[in-house]
Amino acid sequence: MVFLTKQIETAVGGRNNQAVTLHGAVHALRDMGGITFLTLRTRKGLVQCVCTDKADLDDALEGCTVTASGMWRIEPRAPGGKELTDAKITVLSRPAAPMPVPLAKRKLDLHLDTELGLRPLVLRIPRQQAVFRIQAGICRAFREFLQSQEFTEIHTPKIVHAGAEGGANIFRLDYFGKKAFLAQSPQFYKQTMVGVFERVYEVAPVFRAEKHATQRHLNEYTSLDFEMGYIDSFMDLMEMEQGFLRYAMELLKKEYAAELALLGVELPEVERIPAVRFDEIKHLAAEKYGYQIRDPYDLEPEEEHAIGRYVKEEWGSDFVFVTHYPSKKRPFYAMDDPADPKFTLSFDLLFRGLEVTTGGQRIHDYTEQVDKMEERGMDPAEFASYLMIHKYGMPPHGGLGIGLERLTMQLCGLDNIRRACLFPRDRTRLEP
Amino acid sequence: MVFLTKQIETAVGGRNNQAVTLHGAVHALRDMGGITFLTLRTRKGLVQCVCTDKADLDDALEGCTVTASGMWRIEPRAPGGKELTDAKITVLSRPAAPMPVPLAKRKLDLHLDTELGLRPLVLRIPRQQAVFRIQAGICRAFREFLQSQEFTEIHTPKIVHAGAEGGANIFRLDYFGKKAFLAQSPQFYKQTMVGVFERVYEVAPVFRAEKHATQRHLNEYTSLDFEMGYIDSFMDLMEMEQGFLRYAMELLKKEYAAELALLGVELPEVERIPAVRFDEIKHLAAEKYGYQIRDPYDLEPEEEHAIGRYVKEEWGSDFVFVTHYPSKKRPFYAMDDPADPKFTLSFDLLFRGLEVTTGGQRIHDYTEQVDKMEERGMDPAEFASYLMIHKYGMPPHGGLGIGLERLTMQLCGLDNIRRACLFPRDRTRLEP
Repeated sequence: MVFLTKQIETAVGGRNNQAVTLHGAVHALRDMGGITFLTLRTRKGLVQCVCTDKADLDDALEGCTVTASGMWRIEPRAPGGKELTDAKITVLSRPAAPMPVPLAKRKLDLHLDTELGLRPLVLRIPRQQAVFRIQAGICRAFREFLQSQEFTEIHTPKIVHAGAEGGANIFRLDYFGKKAFLAQSPQFYKQTMVGVFERVYEVAPVFRAEKHATQRHLNEYTSLDFEMGYIDSFMDLMEMEQGFLRYAMELLKKEYAAELALLGVELPEVERIPAVRFDEIKHLAAEKYGYQIRDPYDLEPEEEHAIGRYVKEEWGSDFVFVTHYPSKKRPFYAMDDPADPKFTLSFDLLFRGLEVTTGGQRIHDYTEQVDKMEERGMDPAEFASYLMIHKYGMPPHGGLGIGLERLTMQLCGLDNIRRACLFPRDRTRLEP
Repeated sequence: MVFLTKQIETAVGGRNNQAVTLHGAVHALRDMGGITFLTLRTRKGLVQCVCTDKADLDDALEGCTVTASGMWRIEPRAPGGKELTDAKITVLSRPAAPMPVPLAKRKLDLHLDTELGLRPLVLRIPRQQAVFRIQAGICRAFREFLQSQEFTEIHTPKIVHAGAEGGANIFRLDYFGKKAFLAQSPQFYKQTMVGVFERVYEVAPVFRAEKHATQRHLNEYTSLDFEMGYIDSFMDLMEMEQGFLRYAMELLKKEYAAELALLGVELPEVERIPAVRFDEIKHLAAEKYGYQIRDPYDLEPEEEHAIGRYVKEEWGSDFVFVTHYPSKKRPFYAMDDPADPKFTLSFDLLFRGLEVTTGGQRIHDYTEQVDKMEERGMDPAEFASYLMIHKYGMPPHGGLGIGLERLTMQLCGLDNIRRACLFPRDRTRLEP
């Protein structure tokens, strides 16, 4: 028996002329005759190591993992402004085969399908890493901001007895002989938890068995959900989301500057976000760009794109809250507008022409909820455990869900949502 | 169209003799003749409101949600040391039926099954809330600590093409006509991401189709996973976990003192955690408490309990790392001990006699991994997308998974893991 008593130390960065030992993978090797430049891929980025003697290289090849000992030198010509000179390399592990893709090349030029098949390797490329560091930053911002607003984090089940969003887009599974589903959203549970903590959030996977094969759909994605009670109106929800976006952009600017620069990301303005009614913006965009509205109850992808363009050109914003969606296109728990029950007290947030959030006020009154379910031909008895919250008292409340991959995709200017997901799931892809 | 430009303000606490308006649910009402005490359940806890005129009560009943306007007064006899005097109540919503359980009573005396069926209401009880605030604190500590250690957060798929942990304990689903599974752990993906970010973590659900019906098993639980590269030995992993535990206990002490006090939780000592070999502790405990070892390859629940007792009595610790588990009981990716390949470079962490963590060093060499799979009768071709990481180079690495509900259960002294999960899933329970 031994006692573990060691204090963990955070790695110390190197100063000029300091002897240091780094570790990482060999990203690239350039033999310049007398000297060899070895690019080391460390968890903090690429580091140039200069080996003056071949013996110092320990037969390191691309893909080897190594330790590199040498002197830190300020060197303006090196990437990052520093390099490790007189580097002695010790190989920790060797690959069994040469890398099938050139990770150090600026552009890969692979078909997306091929690239996704090689995902475990392709993600090692610094530009790919940058996307997912930014994604981690968005999640961090979501939590830190909501925590500052006194929200409590929750974990709710993904195996459920009923779908929250309805429709056929739900995965089924056998649960010890009973029929069960994969959660399409944490909707019922986050509402339930408003009755407990008033303000709650969850960052978790959701599952949609949609048969789409588009650039903007995944069958499993990460949803940033919050739900809050005692709202005065659904404007409170949009203001809370705007608060999150402000916090996120500040955090990214401050702590993810290198990743933003590598991808050439321009952060959007979030101080003034326009909010406009669904029917109003539909007509404004159709009029300006001269097209016919085909679906009066929903926004088609081309229409979202046109609205994004309109909002940018007319109001100078990358974001727009589209409010008051038609009741018939919103789920049974959405609260109708008392002023005109054909519409709901709900909204989507579009970012550069793509929906990234759906939210709204929910029904909190028991009779109102039961009536709306019956109007839609649903059986309230099937939802007894959900309706318990309405029956025994709920405050006025609402919330929203943000698609993490969509937000990442639009922020980083990616052309396909699969590039904003580490290991995407679509109709044909189950691995890696 | 309007522009959203409002800055979100955090709610301000009240000072003595300050006029404030609060909101919350009516937790309890006591009519004392001339005055009525209304206990308000707010997101910050219970607040006593004193109404001197029945007309000020607005016919509020238990379960109503209300706003309460009045004057904050220092009042040592009130819970929390403050009360709202001259309270005027405005009802925001009314329940449709009287509460079926007395939320303000100190003890519920319900059968666990009944209690779980009423979960949406029972969770509104302050003692229940406290468990899940502490759980949120543990998650927060996990992320904050690992972030300080330069770990990157990842999100990996839960619908997978192959189970990582093997065995029959896996949920199956139909994925657009293909066979798919629910992830038993993020094992393959977190290892893959060590090749990308070196240090990664994930907080996410995992799914186990175990047919157990015990006090310590759930079929869906939240796993706190991390994985790190460039380790010198598997001791590095235990030290990192100890670092997390230190950070977590500090955070709980500082920011969750009210919840700990309400539950009477005594935080464990984490500065000196013993680490002892599997075979050694097995014999030490059996000898001391005079029982026969039945299973030489694993720890039975009673044995974990005995070991917990031994460690507390002999070494004064609530925790113990049990190291070097037998190879035949560990998964195919576990690294065998070169000194004695019947054992692995792995460990469990027991907390007050219950396993809360499993971890260890993983095989990073391609040939070694393929050989071990073949020895176990597995077909490496089925795992090609996972083996890609070994083939093209991986550093020495390892990691662990912590069961969030188990850690919460042991910390809070709960008698059943279902009490440490908001909406537990077991063989018979799919709702709420």
